[in-house]
Amino acid sequence: MSTLFLRTLRDDPADAEVPSHRLLARGGYIRRAAPGGFTWLPLGFRVFRNVERIVREEMDAMGAQEVHFPALLPREPYEATNRWTEYGPNLFRLKDRRGNDFLLGPTHEEMFTLLVKDLYGSYKDLPLSLYQIQTKYRDEARPRAGLFRGREFTMKDSYSFDVDDAGLDRSYAAHRAAYIKIFDRLGLEYVIVSAMSGAMGGSKSEEFLHPTSIGEDTFVRSAGGYAANVEAVSTVVPDAIPLGGCPRRTSRTPRHPDHRDAGRRRAADVPRCRVHRRVDAEERRRHARAPRRQPGAAGHRLAGRPGGRRQAARGAGRPRRGRAVHRFRREPGAGQGYIGPQVLGADAESKIRYLVDPRVVPGSRWITGANEPGKHVFDLVAGRDFTWDGVIEAAEVLAGDPAPDGSGPLELARGVEMGHIFQLGRKYAEALDLKVLDENGKLVTVTMGSYGIGVSRAVAAIAESTHDELGLVWPREVAPADVHLVATGKDAAVFEAAEALAAELVAAGLTVLYDDRPKVSPGVKFKDAELLGMPTIVTVGRGLAEGVIEVRDRRTGEREEVPVADAGARVLAAVKG
Amino acid sequence: MSTLFLRTLRDDPADAEVPSHRLLARGGYIRRAAPGGFTWLPLGFRVFRNVERIVREEMDAMGAQEVHFPALLPREPYEATNRWTEYGPNLFRLKDRRGNDFLLGPTHEEMFTLLVKDLYGSYKDLPLSLYQIQTKYRDEARPRAGLFRGREFTMKDSYSFDVDDAGLDRSYAAHRAAYIKIFDRLGLEYVIVSAMSGAMGGSKSEEFLHPTSIGEDTFVRSAGGYAANVEAVSTVVPDAIPLGGCPRRTSRTPRHPDHRDAGRRRAADVPRCRVHRRVDAEERRRHARAPRRQPGAAGHRLAGRPGGRRQAARGAGRPRRGRAVHRFRREPGAGQGYIGPQVLGADAESKIRYLVDPRVVPGSRWITGANEPGKHVFDLVAGRDFTWDGVIEAAEVLAGDPAPDGSGPLELARGVEMGHIFQLGRKYAEALDLKVLDENGKLVTVTMGSYGIGVSRAVAAIAESTHDELGLVWPREVAPADVHLVATGKDAAVFEAAEALAAELVAAGLTVLYDDRPKVSPGVKFKDAELLGMPTIVTVGRGLAEGVIEVRDRRTGEREEVPVADAGARVLAAVKG
Repeated sequence: MSTLFLRTLRDDPADAEVPSHRLLARGGYIRRAAPGGFTWLPLGFRVFRNVERIVREEMDAMGAQEVHFPALLPREPYEATNRWTEYGPNLFRLKDRRGNDFLLGPTHEEMFTLLVKDLYGSYKDLPLSLYQIQTKYRDEARPRAGLFRGREFTMKDSYSFDVDDAGLDRSYAAHRAAYIKIFDRLGLEYVIVSAMSGAMGGSKSEEFLHPTSIGEDTFVRSAGGYAANVEAVSTVVPDAIPLGGCPRRTSRTPRHPDHRDAGRRRAADVPRCRVHRRVDAEERRRHARAPRRQPGAAGHRLAGRPGGRRQAARGAGRPRRGRAVHRFRREPGAGQGYIGPQVLGADAESKIRYLVDPRVVPGSRWITGANEPGKHVFDLVAGRDFTWDGVIEAAEVLAGDPAPDGSGPLELARGVEMGHIFQLGRKYAEALDLKVLDENGKLVTVTMGSYGIGVSRAVAAIAESTHDELGLVWPREVAPADVHLVATGKDAAVFEAAEALAAELVAAGLTVLYDDRPKVSPGVKFKDAELLGMPTIVTVGRGLAEGVIEVRDRRTGEREEVPVADAGARVLAAVKG
Repeated sequence: MSTLFLRTLRDDPADAEVPSHRLLARGGYIRRAAPGGFTWLPLGFRVFRNVERIVREEMDAMGAQEVHFPALLPREPYEATNRWTEYGPNLFRLKDRRGNDFLLGPTHEEMFTLLVKDLYGSYKDLPLSLYQIQTKYRDEARPRAGLFRGREFTMKDSYSFDVDDAGLDRSYAAHRAAYIKIFDRLGLEYVIVSAMSGAMGGSKSEEFLHPTSIGEDTFVRSAGGYAANVEAVSTVVPDAIPLGGCPRRTSRTPRHPDHRDAGRRRAADVPRCRVHRRVDAEERRRHARAPRRQPGAAGHRLAGRPGGRRQAARGAGRPRRGRAVHRFRREPGAGQGYIGPQVLGADAESKIRYLVDPRVVPGSRWITGANEPGKHVFDLVAGRDFTWDGVIEAAEVLAGDPAPDGSGPLELARGVEMGHIFQLGRKYAEALDLKVLDENGKLVTVTMGSYGIGVSRAVAAIAESTHDELGLVWPREVAPADVHLVATGKDAAVFEAAEALAAELVAAGLTVLYDDRPKVSPGVKFKDAELLGMPTIVTVGRGLAEGVIEVRDRRTGEREEVPVADAGARVLAAVKG
């Protein structure tokens, strides 16, 4: 440590929002170099390389083959799949000296597809899984949380190529098994969640989420074992209710003259824009206000959802907020009146397509706008008083909602995505014309899977999940060194004994971080040892006079005094577990 | 090989100019992905990682510490050192979504300087050597020769930080020694050449050139051991000659009315722009034509050099072609008249600073322009008929020139730069204010060294220097596998014996590329084995019936038939050397 390029910091860096970032910066593992860009310092790069090694070993073991693409890529392949445009501002784009367009690769689906097309042509060449461990670039609007969401980061991305769906299923299963091994070895708690609702058909998509309160993803799980990304939960549709009951009635609601006011107040009786609420739960029904004018509204659509549930941000099986809705919102007066479902629907004069949440079953009762300023309709019964053009998953999931597989009520939790396995299917192969000859000599389009692991992010997640109030606590397989050996005091005998022990441990194949700093106080050395977080801390100090050395487990805090002669064997035993 | 992602190609790729590129592409080691950008395929990436490992081991062994910077860097540090501008079109520049300027790092002097400034502050922290192995970007005008000159490539770059010049010398020497070990282990022939003339003072700069006819660098060496980049050779200055001899005379030379015409013809009597020739060699003297007008020419300069020697392109100790010269060239009429030294010089009316080649010693006789269209002056004697403002190394070196150290005549050769070690001195530390407290508590500017090795380029150089007419011939330490095991024919016993041998070799710690392809002819398999270039080729085939296996050395071609029972031990012995 007297020569290691390291400065531990007493204070948290001002821009560090999460514990992992704070500790990695304070411990001299990483250093901010650019917005969303970090430099790995010597200790940090060792952790990074350990994670990389584990990922590589398991990918090799499952039979995936490692390649390495450039990060600076030409525009054309991404144009062919439309991702050059679709990626929007998240893509770093640049021009070379001749004015040709390039991008910094966010993922490499196109390049892998073209490479396989370039070299392979027969079903006999498949299945094939290729991977790379590579620097990726995304122009994040808001880089945050240190290594969790940067603009330059390292990912393992792999791609499988199969001639048919059964093959894709096998490749997918092999990746899933490899991911389980990887995250187990990394010592990372994880939940495998569905990332795509059943609505999309056969293709599968699962995320490996590390549960943490600082996560950006919300997922649900039930006691019975169901787990899904919140965007992938399909709503359990209630049974239809016999039409009937009290007739609808229109009431003045002058306190809530407009949408924005309603949006600000969350009182139960506030009508909300384009919102339903179940009467059987709430005894009222709500709906959005009518736009005053709806010129050219044909082709637009509105989604009716229960009040009390916000709109789901996005998600598989749900349409993205398309241009139509945007245009509708920009219509003069839109979103300002009290719209109700009576004027909606492809067959209505407005021509606005009207989709409802699956909970809007026939017979359910609602409050909606009355299509007149300052008025709402109560006890509007679905299927009796209004109809709809289709059903859409448009509302957020709430804690207590039933799991779609009947395994009990859902609880919500937050997590960070560590891995994602995804059956791409034929999208890229079709766009880039990757075909092989099948057994009958017929050209068939290849089906692909795409699989990612955040390597630099994993370092942050491990730090985040294992640290304690004193500092980092590395699991053995990723720690930058097996042993942190502290020599304290000024006694030359101490340093001699420590050096002899270090030499013995290194000869036995261990890596040792040796704190040989001559003029640093024991207190500072111990604090550094706690902060840096090697799994085993060995202290040679005052005890040496009595012939003992202290061996401490960083995680449990257990400490033991060991005779000098036994120290090497004792530490070896601790490290080898 | 039945599952390896590999297709060997029978034909050379159309865009491959050099043998290494041809063979690496044909052998399925690399594949072009973009202009100047290559994808490493599985075999290629293994070679790459072997080279990387050797570089890393030797850098670690010399005490350098590995870090890793982003490649996407903010503009500001490069602005502070003026490299944002100086790099010109070679730098990839881009903007993020907020319009901030970024670049893709070509080298990281600025970032390393700032990092050390960030963490260190005392002479006690030094010396320090940091390195990274990283993807670099340069927007080459003409990417060429495959991996030799790409726009995205991998370099090891390291930087040393010392408090004084003696420390820098030690750091430089340590890097030099490590580089020698690295290139020795890589099995690469190299010449260490001076890359900076003595004129610059104490700072040293040396290049590790791999001699090859396809190299872009020209270097000189003498039988006596002198070696230098052609740009770094200092001219041996002839002794002055007593002034006198025949007087100068002006003659009409109407056949050479203008510069362009003269440039096209290379006849000995053609006057050339800004060119001297020694009369003792050529019996004439030449000089450039006078510009018709020289408005604002003050601050401009011209360099006089002997005819028959072209202008040196660039080089340490020589001014780059600065803005002044460019402006001068753009003056109307410039370069079209017959300029002669009589009108040049800081004291002359033209105010054009006049520098001459060291060979223009007092008493030497020359032909120059007569400052009048269509006329030249002959027998102009330096120091008698004209004077100069200074001396400059501006002319090319020619074979047969004397070595500056007196070690004999120089021969010229071509090479490719594999490594470069360079005493940067205080340029970056001054620009970015990297200072530390010295022993007396005084702030002193740190002095730095910069050291690079082309990692991806080394793969190409090894391929280039070791291949033969059949294919690649990898040195053992970088080969993608130790052994290429070929099973030929259709006999199940052959494949069983081959698999048993493969298992035995793998168990002994070797890597084996096993050609288990069932329906490929022996001829194709042998050709592939030659092309792919593993150091040892083992064939299990027809000989098996007589109980023998063939072991062949790829480099020497020596082959030996070995009893099956001894094959494992025999191969192990061959691999272990």
